[in-house]
Amino acid sequence: MCELLGMSANVPTDICFSFTGLIQRGGRTGPHKDGWGIVFYEGKGLRTFKDPKPSSQSRIAKLVQEYPIKSCSVISHIRQANRGGIALENTHPFTRELWGRYWTFAHNGQLSDYSHLTIGRHIPVGETDSELAFCWILDAMERQYPTKPQDASAMSEMFEYVATLCDELRGLGVFNMLLTDGEYLMTYCTNNLHWLTRRAPFGPARLIDEDVEIDFQKETTPNDVVTVIATQPLTHDEPWQKMQPGEFNLFLLGERIAATDLT
Amino acid sequence: MCELLGMSANVPTDICFSFTGLIQRGGRTGPHKDGWGIVFYEGKGLRTFKDPKPSSQSRIAKLVQEYPIKSCSVISHIRQANRGGIALENTHPFTRELWGRYWTFAHNGQLSDYSHLTIGRHIPVGETDSELAFCWILDAMERQYPTKPQDASAMSEMFEYVATLCDELRGLGVFNMLLTDGEYLMTYCTNNLHWLTRRAPFGPARLIDEDVEIDFQKETTPNDVVTVIATQPLTHDEPWQKMQPGEFNLFLLGERIAATDLT
Repeated sequence: MCELLGMSANVPTDICFSFTGLIQRGGRTGPHKDGWGIVFYEGKGLRTFKDPKPSSQSRIAKLVQEYPIKSCSVISHIRQANRGGIALENTHPFTRELWGRYWTFAHNGQLSDYSHLTIGRHIPVGETDSELAFCWILDAMERQYPTKPQDASAMSEMFEYVATLCDELRGLGVFNMLLTDGEYLMTYCTNNLHWLTRRAPFGPARLIDEDVEIDFQKETTPNDVVTVIATQPLTHDEPWQKMQPGEFNLFLLGERIAATDLT
Repeated sequence: MCELLGMSANVPTDICFSFTGLIQRGGRTGPHKDGWGIVFYEGKGLRTFKDPKPSSQSRIAKLVQEYPIKSCSVISHIRQANRGGIALENTHPFTRELWGRYWTFAHNGQLSDYSHLTIGRHIPVGETDSELAFCWILDAMERQYPTKPQDASAMSEMFEYVATLCDELRGLGVFNMLLTDGEYLMTYCTNNLHWLTRRAPFGPARLIDEDVEIDFQKETTPNDVVTVIATQPLTHDEPWQKMQPGEFNLFLLGERIAATDLT
């Protein structure tokens, strides 16, 4: 059913440790072997690495695992195909331009009875429900906001609007999602999504899927704030928080700045 | 001033040999050290590798050089920055969706006095004249053809229309371009662009920029047709053809199927 991985940080940070854990689930410790992808933002630009091969066996994944690319916003996905065959065009994350920024999206789950979702100017290239949902969301964002929201308050309000779109998609099945414009990182949960913010004092962490341990104290400065989001926890013994059905969160520079009012 | 590299083939073919030659010009045998990128199509999907670092020193370029990714349509670019700083968002090739297909573009040259080029729904993310020209072209294509041209004849006519757009851009400076939707590969020349079609009987080739030789006879079948396009020839002793100012060519599965009438 796929797994998601995301990162929001206040300093350019590499994701090699978490990515090393995730990719094992693509064919070794988990069944998500139908392709994988990762997007790193650097300023307004981004780099994408994708492969329809299993992440645990991919030469490109090995490069990403070993070559630290530092970024403040990252989305990654390992796929277990349901809608749409195993092919590059069906491999997440998906990226489209809106308001002169690149928007990147990845989805874990499956939707049904979604033929009523009208597509506007963003047209899917592949055959997944995921890409179609992304195109539908972008079109709705653009209709509601013909120009880019101009300040932080307007951006927060815009993301709250996106959360209502996600509520509608959750009515069609399982919709866990990550969405970013390279600055903000939004999460939406239907059933499986966890998050963790690491800040000083940093400590050690141990991966679940690989015999790898890291001492974050040696890798960070006291001011670093790094939030990691994953479908299932990637490490032992860290205080991962499980999101609730219908919960949305908005992260900026590693900090949670908005969330569903769950009271 | 940048260099372009393109390939159109009738069977999935790797471009490691040509790419090895090109990347030397990004900081070793040539000055185009302000970033590089390459896009490989596989069916409707594509893979992009980009780095704002010089191609001759890039770990990611090294992977691409050594890891054969087979494709029927490839565009690559090594950059010497003029408009827009050295940054990932200013690194070619650029990719956007139109008509449910990914379109990829790279430009060699420099435009001036282009503020009159009106942008529609495709908005540049970076600051280059190149990306702006691409957005302008896409908008014009979409206005002229609100839906995807439906057959080969209509597609050829559409590319001839794109050539008239390129003529207009050539009036603003140097505009050498590669454009592909993963099937068709279009070239447009202002001053520097060369092409070469390899077909049976295949023979050896020797790079200009690196001491590498290949015997294509051992790498191909008798039915293979592979066209390579490059700003400057990449090999010694092969019959590279120099394009003329204002010349456009259209390649499909390695064969040239349309061209400017230069008579």
